[in-house]
Amino acid sequence: MEIPVLDRIAMAAARERQARLTKPAGALGRLEELSVWLAGVQGMCPPRPFAQVRAIVVAGDHGIAHAGVSAYPPEVTAQMVASFAAGGAAVNVLARRAGASVRVVDVAVDGWTPDQRYKVRFGSGRIDREDALSADEAAHAFAIGRAVADEEVDAGADLLVPGDMGIGNTTPSAALVAALLDLEPVAVVGRGTGIDDRRWMVKTAAIRDALWRGRRVGGDPRLLLGVLGGADLAALSGLLLQAAARRTPVVLDGVVVCAAALAAARLAPGVERWWVAGHRSPEPAQQAALAALALEPLLDLGMRLGEGTGGLLAVGLLRAAQATVAEMATFDEAGVTGKT
Amino acid sequence: MEIPVLDRIAMAAARERQARLTKPAGALGRLEELSVWLAGVQGMCPPRPFAQVRAIVVAGDHGIAHAGVSAYPPEVTAQMVASFAAGGAAVNVLARRAGASVRVVDVAVDGWTPDQRYKVRFGSGRIDREDALSADEAAHAFAIGRAVADEEVDAGADLLVPGDMGIGNTTPSAALVAALLDLEPVAVVGRGTGIDDRRWMVKTAAIRDALWRGRRVGGDPRLLLGVLGGADLAALSGLLLQAAARRTPVVLDGVVVCAAALAAARLAPGVERWWVAGHRSPEPAQQAALAALALEPLLDLGMRLGEGTGGLLAVGLLRAAQATVAEMATFDEAGVTGKT
Repeated sequence: MEIPVLDRIAMAAARERQARLTKPAGALGRLEELSVWLAGVQGMCPPRPFAQVRAIVVAGDHGIAHAGVSAYPPEVTAQMVASFAAGGAAVNVLARRAGASVRVVDVAVDGWTPDQRYKVRFGSGRIDREDALSADEAAHAFAIGRAVADEEVDAGADLLVPGDMGIGNTTPSAALVAALLDLEPVAVVGRGTGIDDRRWMVKTAAIRDALWRGRRVGGDPRLLLGVLGGADLAALSGLLLQAAARRTPVVLDGVVVCAAALAAARLAPGVERWWVAGHRSPEPAQQAALAALALEPLLDLGMRLGEGTGGLLAVGLLRAAQATVAEMATFDEAGVTGKT
Repeated sequence: MEIPVLDRIAMAAARERQARLTKPAGALGRLEELSVWLAGVQGMCPPRPFAQVRAIVVAGDHGIAHAGVSAYPPEVTAQMVASFAAGGAAVNVLARRAGASVRVVDVAVDGWTPDQRYKVRFGSGRIDREDALSADEAAHAFAIGRAVADEEVDAGADLLVPGDMGIGNTTPSAALVAALLDLEPVAVVGRGTGIDDRRWMVKTAAIRDALWRGRRVGGDPRLLLGVLGGADLAALSGLLLQAAARRTPVVLDGVVVCAAALAAARLAPGVERWWVAGHRSPEPAQQAALAALALEPLLDLGMRLGEGTGGLLAVGLLRAAQATVAEMATFDEAGVTGKT
């Protein structure tokens, strides 16, 4: 897949503009870097305010949840999808605050949800014992992610914040990161929704078994998404790649989105230029994925909810970066004396 | 000065409410802590949205600027005050984004500004050679800060974001922190607006000389504000104390505000309960002050502009914390199964 480059001319113009704004050079820190990035992804300087920010929660269940890797029962996935529709979940509240709207895409919830059009199957396979998806299902999930990105961009979205919902989904995410980066299970396993030591051991063993099963496909990211990932991870990878193909920037969220992002970047190196990391999660696999992508998170607030919440919270920082570079006066305009 | 305590009953209610919201316990990380703090400062659970957020930029010049401690000439202070009135500075832009309004208080600008009512003098003294203020001036500046806090709270402000403007003001701020924490000049001196090595040496020597002069008053924070601080630092200390006395929360900004905050906390231990640290600045004195206050910054984006910009950027996180605890559905309301 061909990944477009950022607009270097707009980026140079943004850097030059930052130097003329009434503040010491670099004094707005990462807001200045973000403003240059926004100029690059939008291809204009100064960058414009976002017209339509979309949170896209990709929901799916995982057979591994039945092994006891989560503190919550699998039926919570479908219940939370209903809660997203009702508007009372964290993602809904933080989307309202971020000036974003929320879309839920059920690719593999193991139950009936309001919109089944994108369902690949009822629950991805139990990765310690079987492939998460058949090759056809993996390709289908990946294509769904691409189609969703196309739909959103066609409808006017100019910033995407992918999120996840699925009891047990940090287990395949950690396994995927470990397989892609050749890490041990203990280097990627985290507490997920807040599991105790017993469940942590079960989870670590599940990741170990999944990695063992995954060895047969080598490091091929597309195959790994099907063997030890799942429909949600495959769809997120497709979505992330197609967003970049459509020149649409993305704010990454937690471990599930970042695991999919790592797979996407292996399929199309350079795609990470179109992303910013919204926040640092306590999940070790998220941190490993971000380090491999050379992305430094904007926030570090101990958030570990998923749903796109960490990404949405960072949208305010992007809006601030846009506003400062676009609205601040220059030294000349303000009649302020420059550096001596 | 008597500092009110936070409302423990409201805080306990917020903690209890957080446990019932549709997310794993603790999954919103510091947003949850902030929601508990907001319940405590407002005395209600859930906390309400802010009605009026006010950025208050305390502006003042410093004689030490004439020693060459800054990359900018002293006349920039008055020029920037004019720019604040015109609405084109970083503080204006970030205040608009944060839903805040901006007030500028000239306590010691060495030039004519639109509002001279609160002026203590034209520039605080050059602290390496003379006291920044007489005892009367220091008391006057402190009282002005208290009066400004009273005016704002009386007018309906329920969140204050103090800021600073003044060429050379990181020098007395660093000296004040060093004097209060008994640190060496090199442990507190920073690059300010971006000074070169030569100016860094001049600045370090100025802090050293100021600390030498300040030894005669021991560690008395009120006297130190006059000897090696300045009218802006004294006014900010008064403002911070009176805000807490009026049960009004504050978001701290960079090194100047944090130096004043440290002095305030020495005058009235416990006042820091009414504050959150908006961001971590690269200025070592800011980090030392925050560590001494046991406040962990919300943002760490390399910002070093002052004006209240780092505090204003963090207001969005406080609003998100309020919105999540107030608007999210509980497990019962959403019909979601809890932890197994």
